[in-house]
Amino acid sequence: MDDRKIKIEGSARHVHVTKEALRTLFGEGSSLHNKRELSQPGQSLCEEKVRLEGPRGCIDRVSILGPERPATQVEVSLTDARALGIDPPIRESGDIKGSAPIRIVGPAGTIDLAEGAIAAKRHIHLSPAEAAAFGVSDKQTVMVKTAGQRALVFDEVVVRVSEGFVASMHVDFDEMNAAGLSGDAPGEIMLQ
Amino acid sequence: MDDRKIKIEGSARHVHVTKEALRTLFGEGSSLHNKRELSQPGQSLCEEKVRLEGPRGCIDRVSILGPERPATQVEVSLTDARALGIDPPIRESGDIKGSAPIRIVGPAGTIDLAEGAIAAKRHIHLSPAEAAAFGVSDKQTVMVKTAGQRALVFDEVVVRVSEGFVASMHVDFDEMNAAGLSGDAPGEIMLQ
Repeated sequence: MDDRKIKIEGSARHVHVTKEALRTLFGEGSSLHNKRELSQPGQSLCEEKVRLEGPRGCIDRVSILGPERPATQVEVSLTDARALGIDPPIRESGDIKGSAPIRIVGPAGTIDLAEGAIAAKRHIHLSPAEAAAFGVSDKQTVMVKTAGQRALVFDEVVVRVSEGFVASMHVDFDEMNAAGLSGDAPGEIMLQ
Repeated sequence: MDDRKIKIEGSARHVHVTKEALRTLFGEGSSLHNKRELSQPGQSLCEEKVRLEGPRGCIDRVSILGPERPATQVEVSLTDARALGIDPPIRESGDIKGSAPIRIVGPAGTIDLAEGAIAAKRHIHLSPAEAAAFGVSDKQTVMVKTAGQRALVFDEVVVRVSEGFVASMHVDFDEMNAAGLSGDAPGEIMLQ
């Protein structure tokens, strides 16, 4: 396959919540309200916002992504982490064991997470058919090259393959800015 | 030469001022007070702090770097730029023609710069002897590879050679964070 292009999207800081966390933060009987569908089918940006509090500072109006998950998780950039005064590990989503503590404040209540704050490891979502076309497999790491005034090659990009995925690379805004990218930007997968 | 290692340092947001701008911001008879010497000989972080104001937001306690220069210049990351609501070009220091407007507020006065705000183009400082040892020349662009969980290869790194320089690569904190670097981090120059 000759076309190694992949769309790169910036993921803003966000929170995933359990049903129980949603009740604590927004009150009994509350539910998530979708504001916009995200690139991965079934995932959405919600109307509900929370405040993140760390030992050094706070960040207001942080979006919740739906739907609810089995564990509450906070994903921030390392710039955010410094502002908050926390030290999150670089992890894949869902891998929160021993990650950083953080406080989440909603209109109805507060949650003190003993662990759950991570900086997301950059990754590529692919369906099995797309992975086959690119010649890559689940959990493989690849390099992705960008162009422009701040051209760079992201190494250590983990590939995640699932039936429910659509081809897209996710990085945080430190990574988008370091590469001088905005909106949906093109990248090129380079196999190692 | 086998050793292609270069020290990578993060440059925080900062301001360079003319003597006149210093008087406007801090009052008649004011001068810069060095807090810490920087890696490039003669350059220093000063005690004097200012506030940056943009159409969307402000950033307080931004350091001035000394000594005074022929033109006032503000260097921010693209994360800062978004918080301020400005759109600075990626430029080498000193190349401010047509760059973004910004307001600088000091204890004694305010300056509305019609141009002067940039996001620094990543670069390497080298003495002529160091440049010869690396086999690179002034204004050449090179690639620099980093290691670790967020390993990447910075492309479009401009080499600047001067008698007064000491080997060091400068990136902003979006770039440090994207590469997962802190403190003085090692990089490796790759010639193209």
